[in-house]
Amino acid sequence: MKHYKIAVLAGDGIGPEITREALKVLKLIEERNDVSFELMPAAFGACAYFETGDAFPQATIDICDQADAILKGPIGLSHEESKKIPIDKQPERGALLPMRRRYNTYANFRPVSLPKALAHFSPLKAEIIGEGIDLVIVRELVGGLYFGQKESGVNEQGLRYVRETLEYDELQIRRIMHQAFKLASKRRKLLHNIHKSNVLKSSVLWNEVMEEVAVEYPDVTVVNMLVDSAATALCLNPTQFDVMVMENMFGDILSDQGGGILGSLGLMPSACIGDDKAYYEPSHGSAPDIAGKNIANPYSMIGSVAMMLENSFNMPEEAKNVWAAMQAVFSDGYSTADLSKPGSGVIMISTEQFGDKVVEKL
Amino acid sequence: MKHYKIAVLAGDGIGPEITREALKVLKLIEERNDVSFELMPAAFGACAYFETGDAFPQATIDICDQADAILKGPIGLSHEESKKIPIDKQPERGALLPMRRRYNTYANFRPVSLPKALAHFSPLKAEIIGEGIDLVIVRELVGGLYFGQKESGVNEQGLRYVRETLEYDELQIRRIMHQAFKLASKRRKLLHNIHKSNVLKSSVLWNEVMEEVAVEYPDVTVVNMLVDSAATALCLNPTQFDVMVMENMFGDILSDQGGGILGSLGLMPSACIGDDKAYYEPSHGSAPDIAGKNIANPYSMIGSVAMMLENSFNMPEEAKNVWAAMQAVFSDGYSTADLSKPGSGVIMISTEQFGDKVVEKL
Ligand SMILES: CC(C)[C@H](C(=O)O)[C@@H](O)C(=O)O
Ligand SMILES: CC(C)[C@H](C(=O)O)[C@@H](O)C(=O)O
Repeated sequence: MKHYKIAVLAGDGIGPEITREALKVLKLIEERNDVSFELMPAAFGACAYFETGDAFPQATIDICDQADAILKGPIGLSHEESKKIPIDKQPERGALLPMRRRYNTYANFRPVSLPKALAHFSPLKAEIIGEGIDLVIVRELVGGLYFGQKESGVNEQGLRYVRETLEYDELQIRRIMHQAFKLASKRRKLLHNIHKSNVLKSSVLWNEVMEEVAVEYPDVTVVNMLVDSAATALCLNPTQFDVMVMENMFGDILSDQGGGILGSLGLMPSACIGDDKAYYEPSHGSAPDIAGKNIANPYSMIGSVAMMLENSFNMPEEAKNVWAAMQAVFSDGYSTADLSKPGSGVIMISTEQFGDKVVEKL
Repeated sequence: MKHYKIAVLAGDGIGPEITREALKVLKLIEERNDVSFELMPAAFGACAYFETGDAFPQATIDICDQADAILKGPIGLSHEESKKIPIDKQPERGALLPMRRRYNTYANFRPVSLPKALAHFSPLKAEIIGEGIDLVIVRELVGGLYFGQKESGVNEQGLRYVRETLEYDELQIRRIMHQAFKLASKRRKLLHNIHKSNVLKSSVLWNEVMEEVAVEYPDVTVVNMLVDSAATALCLNPTQFDVMVMENMFGDILSDQGGGILGSLGLMPSACIGDDKAYYEPSHGSAPDIAGKNIANPYSMIGSVAMMLENSFNMPEEAKNVWAAMQAVFSDGYSTADLSKPGSGVIMISTEQFGDKVVEKL
């Protein structure tokens, strides 16, 4: 029997309630397979800061170090609440970015997927969605502005200023390109390379390295697209895309636009993969405004479990089953509040009911 | 009689043909008002580079220096064609950015506007558009990554790298904030401040200065929103926005997303305003693939003329008339190819016909 240790970081806001549903799914998978999951819960995010003074406390680091995979809920507070925490201790700078850096999870996979049958969830017209949206954003996750040096102070003219650096070297670019090309090879063999080479020199290097790597994947067609054009295209014609690769900040913005075209960030799971460790997280925030109300959408968290099953535990069949189970719940006409606007004909269910229904379908 | 000098930079690709239509409108305005426009055409962009070796040649600089306002078409080449020009001479780095820097046009206004009656142009469902989209993106245009220092080379590990800087000082932030707050005061008194303060230190300063400036505009309500959330929200609920203010790169991406939700970048005019000089330009590219075919949408160029009339020549009534004339052409059921997809019931007309119809309506 296989045995896996999973660090479970429920996070802030809606984190605990959507994590609870994801764990139900994990439990079922465990029961019916020759596998055992050892869940190791740990504090992470603002909740950890208020408990321990640290958003990524040493105890949590130790647990994550030992884990075979990390399942992480969303973290963060409202804009106003955030101000109660010193800037460098805030959950993003104090926990999330350190985690990404520590485990060097440079490859962030964010599927943006909406079958035709669920076109009604989307703000886009049915004819735009056509046969369905099914693309993956491959985002570089440990470089660029996120991790560049930052300097602030008062300049010679007596003005407060901040200077931050966006840095990439060829190695950082090459390894994410390989991930993107490999994924493209397994899918429609179409890779959109998103850049801003008409302004950013880093994009010039990015494109150079992309062309070098492309030689190794002759069956993949590359389309170069400026990031601003991509933002237009994701609204006008999202079905043209299959795999899109881009640097960190561009990926942050375009993947949330991805949630926008699907109809809810609640539909955005993700996998963050390094050479030795991977963690899985919804790509949305902690939604403090709806926390504790049992109305959040656990799809992104359950989907993150599916990505973990496939990537970390080599259980692609069960991963597929999880996706199918969630689609089946939707097909039966149910969804959480984010996707069941009045008049849409969708029957609104709670966070917990969604989790239960997924388990039933499984 | 008022006399204004206008530098006319038709630019590349579809630039000349959409400029031609915009000039028709300008001519009519001149005929029926106590004003004369002296048009000073000049070469700018890739065309200028191929003619003179410089995308922003000295002769053009001289003309722009003298002009009361500058009307500028889109510039640029296809990804492949661009490679024929040395990187620093390419139209963006060699002409557009130098122009922005020279005239310090720090405030870029990009209206994203779609009346309810034109909801069929948009990829968004009618219920998302509701009573219509009507927002303005106020983009900082001469700071940030666009103008920061850039360094590239080979590092100690023998790896090629690029490092660029994103820099803002409080003065740069304060002046764009005043522009945004002033605009908000004249409109719905609602300002969305777009930032990424959970990662970028520059956003922390940005928000600090915003709060200082806000004190002077007590009647304006500020909503702080992360740039990634804004990308979601622009798809899910664009009508919540009225004025949005953001730094340079964020503005680049979100404004093109704005074109996406309208249905075409052809609907995106813009004004770039400095303390002493302003220029007006479509916010889309030069679309080399459709250049010379008489099918491009001149709306963005004619709209840029309307913005020039209002901002540079103090002719708000005529500006309004121009907007109304374009809406009237749409209401009659006509549009260029970008907005008249088969089955949409829209009658497709050429670039030239669109210009003529606008003149008729005026
Ligand atoms: C919380 C924040 C730091 C994070 C990011 O910007 O990467 C989030 O938006 C995401 O996309 O995972
Ligand atoms: C052409 C390019 C340099 C420019 C920019 O990035 O600012 C354009 O995309 C725009 O939005 O005006």
